[in-house]
Amino acid sequence: MSASPAIPVTAPLDLPGIRTAVDAVLKSFLANKAATAADGGLPGEVTELLHDFIFAGGKRLRPLLCVLGWHTASNNTSGSSPAQAVQVGAALEMFHAFCLIHDDIMDHSTTRRGQPTLHHTLAARHRTGRTRALADDLGTSAAILTGDLALLWSDELLHDPHHGLKPDQREHVEPLIDLMRGEVMYGQYLDLIATGYPTPDTAPALAIIRYKTAKYTIERPLHIGAALAGADDPLMHQLSAFALPLGEAFQLRDDLLGAFGHPEHTGKPALDDLREGKHTVLIAHALQAADDTQTRLLHGLYGNPRLDEKNAETVRAVLRATGADQTVEHMITQRYEQALTALDHLPAPAGALHQLRALADKTVWRVS
Amino acid sequence: MSASPAIPVTAPLDLPGIRTAVDAVLKSFLANKAATAADGGLPGEVTELLHDFIFAGGKRLRPLLCVLGWHTASNNTSGSSPAQAVQVGAALEMFHAFCLIHDDIMDHSTTRRGQPTLHHTLAARHRTGRTRALADDLGTSAAILTGDLALLWSDELLHDPHHGLKPDQREHVEPLIDLMRGEVMYGQYLDLIATGYPTPDTAPALAIIRYKTAKYTIERPLHIGAALAGADDPLMHQLSAFALPLGEAFQLRDDLLGAFGHPEHTGKPALDDLREGKHTVLIAHALQAADDTQTRLLHGLYGNPRLDEKNAETVRAVLRATGADQTVEHMITQRYEQALTALDHLPAPAGALHQLRALADKTVWRVS
Repeated sequence: MSASPAIPVTAPLDLPGIRTAVDAVLKSFLANKAATAADGGLPGEVTELLHDFIFAGGKRLRPLLCVLGWHTASNNTSGSSPAQAVQVGAALEMFHAFCLIHDDIMDHSTTRRGQPTLHHTLAARHRTGRTRALADDLGTSAAILTGDLALLWSDELLHDPHHGLKPDQREHVEPLIDLMRGEVMYGQYLDLIATGYPTPDTAPALAIIRYKTAKYTIERPLHIGAALAGADDPLMHQLSAFALPLGEAFQLRDDLLGAFGHPEHTGKPALDDLREGKHTVLIAHALQAADDTQTRLLHGLYGNPRLDEKNAETVRAVLRATGADQTVEHMITQRYEQALTALDHLPAPAGALHQLRALADKTVWRVS
Repeated sequence: MSASPAIPVTAPLDLPGIRTAVDAVLKSFLANKAATAADGGLPGEVTELLHDFIFAGGKRLRPLLCVLGWHTASNNTSGSSPAQAVQVGAALEMFHAFCLIHDDIMDHSTTRRGQPTLHHTLAARHRTGRTRALADDLGTSAAILTGDLALLWSDELLHDPHHGLKPDQREHVEPLIDLMRGEVMYGQYLDLIATGYPTPDTAPALAIIRYKTAKYTIERPLHIGAALAGADDPLMHQLSAFALPLGEAFQLRDDLLGAFGHPEHTGKPALDDLREGKHTVLIAHALQAADDTQTRLLHGLYGNPRLDEKNAETVRAVLRATGADQTVEHMITQRYEQALTALDHLPAPAGALHQLRALADKTVWRVS
């Protein structure tokens, strides 16, 4: 079991402070795993590369929300430890690493957080004496396993004897974690089936957003943190009223950035999303409004794995010409305002509300 | 959360009875998940195909050992429920489904349990309107996700409010489950890195066997069941003394069957293992004893993905000519006898000992 690092007695309320505390838990956990592996003669590259992956970047959104969720409810006398919120937040981040690693394999992505994706790094590491094809194959398999290990280790972080879930918390917190994990998996599955076959129907795209992002990225982390602190049902509902529109706005922003964003900001090529052909609300609205020529262009170019920059610009031009980008910006603003309204009604300490507002602003109005 | 089926009050001691009880838990769990998915507009094929995968066959070895492990220790007055051993056994089987699904992807296997592997089935399901390559790609991704879901669901089976782990059991049982899962993942990783590059060195092959099979398949399930019933450390050590040699014998038998077995018995083509080029103890011994010609033949043919039946026969002939198959049979017998000796010293009820003996015989002397 992992040794506990020096966790501050209170869960920090400032976003950088939370991040530092969560990262300390992750660093310590991985260092412990690396030592165990070394003792057992097991490959060091797993913990090494997972460490590099996690610390290459990322917004730490879910741990931040988990700790803030804890703060919204911690007036309730639950006796829960603030260090727990940080520990569980770290577990959520480790779970997210699992999601991203597998996601990058399934999307055939080449870059994330400004560096090669894990399956690419692993392929490069094992190139010597192998053909390119075999090395790529091994890289993919090794990344599947590394992702699997990250998932297992997110569980171990939850089981930590010092700051993990206490027996009496399991009943209220564990089901939320299980729900969250099932929701994101199903969201990924819906996304997978729909990719490459965009239609003017926004319903599938909205379902994907709901499961894959709104619930997984914003709602459930808040719920989990709040449940750790003994939140009651009314508070949970109010957190959802904030989280679900914010989560939708977050994903809609992601889709806009994926189509129009700049690689130096987003850390991944601006062609990836257009080449993938995901069924987004953006493309659905474009197809709704497109004339015959525009429709033909979109179906011909969007989702083409060999799309070049020139044709990408054509796609972007069509998206703009149909007004789809404007429609989505309007949807983002609408949802952002819904989220802020819900925040006004959230019976939570002022400090937590302030940070949630700051987080909402960051996630909705970001450029990467 | 899953509804509890009618579990018999006592955990059955006969192997078919245990299997029936474990399968009932799995059926009920998956039916519940299917209903939830339908309510949420989520794809039904996930639970459908996972159900088909699990009920296509399999030896249920880990759940059997879990329940038998429980029986070895249930003289200890732990107050643990016999239905729990069945529930946790079901969780182990669901976890195993995750392992196999991902394993089949990484090994590029086409058949398992007499039917197409899950990634192949999913590719076929989504062939309409897609090129072969895109359908295969989607099948692989969907299988990665389905495997991921099986892993998450093995956790949910453990969290079942009726028969899952009780709070006071978590401290002793959960670490064993975490160890087991980490061990098999690392074993898979070692196996992956070594595949295609067999050498005369048996040490890597034995390390793979230890982590991937001896501990995962035999030792930990016994430990977990025993820990549920409150087993003390001496009993755990004695269970290991039985389990580790038996587990090694089991894998060595698997390697022999993989090279020499008949598809109608094993449920998978007899060429798969030879084409994969795994670094087994069998091939290591063959390379140790091989002369120049035999070495050249083995390096040229073993691990060739397009190996045909004729060349497979050549490989088998060389394996026999070097005496490697005899060496491995001898190792199997040695370990089987070690396991039986340990069984003689196991302070457990006679019924449990009898079943463990029966299981040892089945696993070591099987033809599939």
